[in-house]
Amino acid sequence: MPKLETYSHQLSYSYAPGIFPSHALLNARPELARRLLVRSDALESEGVRALIDKCAALNVRTETADRALERISRKENCYAALVFDKFSSALDPQKNHVVLVNPSDMGNLGTILRACLGFTLPDLAIIRPAADVFDPRVVRASMGALFSMRVALYDSFEEYRAQHPGHALYPFMLDGSLPLPQARKTAKAPYALVFGNEATGLPASFASLGQPVRIPQSDAIDSLNLSVAVSIAAYAFTQEA
Amino acid sequence: MPKLETYSHQLSYSYAPGIFPSHALLNARPELARRLLVRSDALESEGVRALIDKCAALNVRTETADRALERISRKENCYAALVFDKFSSALDPQKNHVVLVNPSDMGNLGTILRACLGFTLPDLAIIRPAADVFDPRVVRASMGALFSMRVALYDSFEEYRAQHPGHALYPFMLDGSLPLPQARKTAKAPYALVFGNEATGLPASFASLGQPVRIPQSDAIDSLNLSVAVSIAAYAFTQEA
Repeated sequence: MPKLETYSHQLSYSYAPGIFPSHALLNARPELARRLLVRSDALESEGVRALIDKCAALNVRTETADRALERISRKENCYAALVFDKFSSALDPQKNHVVLVNPSDMGNLGTILRACLGFTLPDLAIIRPAADVFDPRVVRASMGALFSMRVALYDSFEEYRAQHPGHALYPFMLDGSLPLPQARKTAKAPYALVFGNEATGLPASFASLGQPVRIPQSDAIDSLNLSVAVSIAAYAFTQEA
Repeated sequence: MPKLETYSHQLSYSYAPGIFPSHALLNARPELARRLLVRSDALESEGVRALIDKCAALNVRTETADRALERISRKENCYAALVFDKFSSALDPQKNHVVLVNPSDMGNLGTILRACLGFTLPDLAIIRPAADVFDPRVVRASMGALFSMRVALYDSFEEYRAQHPGHALYPFMLDGSLPLPQARKTAKAPYALVFGNEATGLPASFASLGQPVRIPQSDAIDSLNLSVAVSIAAYAFTQEA
């Protein structure tokens, strides 16, 4: 592997910044790990030691890299990071899906990954243009959940739909006709929960593609944060009635 | 008002950065508005024009302040910001409450304000030490929801409890004995939903103060993001069964 570069979308590798996300990677997809970077003043910390041991067992090299870690973490406190190969994964056609149409905020995307995994919806479709799911900021916000999920990228919603024509679609829209608590009770599986961009939501045309759902909310707010909306939907659809 | 300073906790005023949060302030608490700052290249934008008109009607002065806006928004794109007087408000003793014990992340805090308002839980207690609810980053993440809420600060949970001894307490804990879907069905009002810090959660001692609740979630994640957990709880407690 050549000299490590500042992360960009074009690279074939990325960074899992932080001890917790690095452990998550080693537990879920150890074959992706390429190098462990550690801060020279953190070599004796317990979490870092455990990372070094796991990496040694996998024949993954450890190196001290204070400058690189500062760059990767954008000056936030970061004791260690794993360099990992990006991967692609197909969605499980039998399972329920979450579909994000043009999500733009990296923090939201990471938080969504974490919540979807927490509510046993590990199949996520992302319609481009979208925030880069491999950006270290997304990996960190996901707390490493990314490595336990199947994430598939599509250039259009139609492309996703063509691959998974049988899923019952539930587009989430502010004026959706079915309130979420009812939607949960009548949901047909396998389903796909579909969400639009942070600023614009889904185009009106999505209403005719499936059963539009709204999360009942007060007029006092314009809308919920995207990661909050997706998480509430994931919770509601996966709880026993 | 003297020369505007970079925001700090000590100031008696703060900034609502962005057009949407500024409108939210003028709609909810116009008496707090002190000055409108606009970027010189945004004077003709529709949202900014509407702000200028509303401020004129309230005798609030508008000034162009490109440099100050850049500082306030930390270089993010920001066309306008309102300078406002900080305020304090007592919680409504008859209403349900949300209590955050030592929340530390400003983005989370803003997102929580927005979700609580959206689910008609506008009474928020914050136990210090905590992120500063008046920080412009919180105001922006809240999309101005802050101005429609009652937010009370306390130095300890005991201080909150002494003021509101009658609320049924629902501390949210990873090992809470009652799953959230059931908690909703048996909830006694007025209630207080209580959440701990992002990194540590609530101390174990909270289990004996009320009915501990858990949000059912997979072992694949360590925990949910705090703003997600609070939002799901607020949703679940306020929906019809």
